[in-house]
Amino acid sequence: MSIHYPAGQGPQRLAKKTIDIPTPHKSIYAKRGMSLEKEINESNQYYLATHQAVIHKKPTPIQLVHVDYPKRSAAVVREAYFRRPSTTDYNGVYKGYYIDFDAKETRNKRSFPLKNFHQHQITHLKECVAQGGICFAFIKFTELDELYILPATIVFHYWHLKEHHHRSSIPLTQIKADGIRVHYGLNPRLQYLPAVDQLIASVNKGVTHE
Amino acid sequence: MSIHYPAGQGPQRLAKKTIDIPTPHKSIYAKRGMSLEKEINESNQYYLATHQAVIHKKPTPIQLVHVDYPKRSAAVVREAYFRRPSTTDYNGVYKGYYIDFDAKETRNKRSFPLKNFHQHQITHLKECVAQGGICFAFIKFTELDELYILPATIVFHYWHLKEHHHRSSIPLTQIKADGIRVHYGLNPRLQYLPAVDQLIASVNKGVTHE
Repeated sequence: MSIHYPAGQGPQRLAKKTIDIPTPHKSIYAKRGMSLEKEINESNQYYLATHQAVIHKKPTPIQLVHVDYPKRSAAVVREAYFRRPSTTDYNGVYKGYYIDFDAKETRNKRSFPLKNFHQHQITHLKECVAQGGICFAFIKFTELDELYILPATIVFHYWHLKEHHHRSSIPLTQIKADGIRVHYGLNPRLQYLPAVDQLIASVNKGVTHE
Repeated sequence: MSIHYPAGQGPQRLAKKTIDIPTPHKSIYAKRGMSLEKEINESNQYYLATHQAVIHKKPTPIQLVHVDYPKRSAAVVREAYFRRPSTTDYNGVYKGYYIDFDAKETRNKRSFPLKNFHQHQITHLKECVAQGGICFAFIKFTELDELYILPATIVFHYWHLKEHHHRSSIPLTQIKADGIRVHYGLNPRLQYLPAVDQLIASVNKGVTHE
């Protein structure tokens, strides 16, 4: 039986050499951003395969300008531009909860710079929190090799201080106090669902999940 | 103040003429698929602006092969291919619930052809239902101008019949019986949240939402 790919679905083998680029809006932190993204993607694959959670990274939005449709082979994008995403990078469902987060890395050792966040991400996270989603920033201190999930509400607080009081970062002490530490394990290497469980428990203490 | 776009985020004005293509895996139904997609996207924008729900269409995944980074202007994708998505097109959060669906159109008047579904969509929807998500197919009968949201569990039932008993479609009578009709209104034109409310209520009758 031959497989009929719908047009434009095409055989990926055509793409001989592929580039594994990080999300464009993080390109300043490309090298650093890669590894946390990869770690999270691997965890998500494991969680999906073991039916623990369905969380995916959203594809980078692309504005297509010119696409060739060669006969008998896959459509080829010949001119396109990266677009600014209107959401965060990751979302999905876990134990009935809507999960939404962005992954961020820093080489700083004492604080997390707020310039790593963008207004559209804050706006999106606020909308999701208002709808009862479980939202957070997944932060990695690469030099310390420490990871935390920081509830979106804490991010909003510091974003407000940035906007109105020129605050430039969130102190690590605050992240240790209000965030939940994520630990490395064997399989998946990055075990972040236990931290999400804690976040859900603390949200449920304060607010009833409909 | 000049705005510093992160590299690759670029000014969209560079892209003079842009192409508005439908999701590639639906390209056979391109013309038809367009309009339901557009209608849903408009509803989603309205629901987001009025803080009723946060539901987005996922960007089409693209495999990048060659990207130019010209000095002082936005990165240009010069060679890329469409990838097969591993999820459905739409997801988000509404009243604390994770929402996940795909939009499908048919010109048939009596039944909905199962060939409009793909295995990866069924697999993804099953995983999401297992995690307590509110999942459905958003179906439009273009010739009848009738729209329905059909619970994913009904889709699974007919997908099973297709796999094991060579069933090729879901009868409209069945969709009328098990689906929830979506009506046009003024703003947004396509008012599908009331149908989602009904689906949530019926899911809650059967299964407890954690």
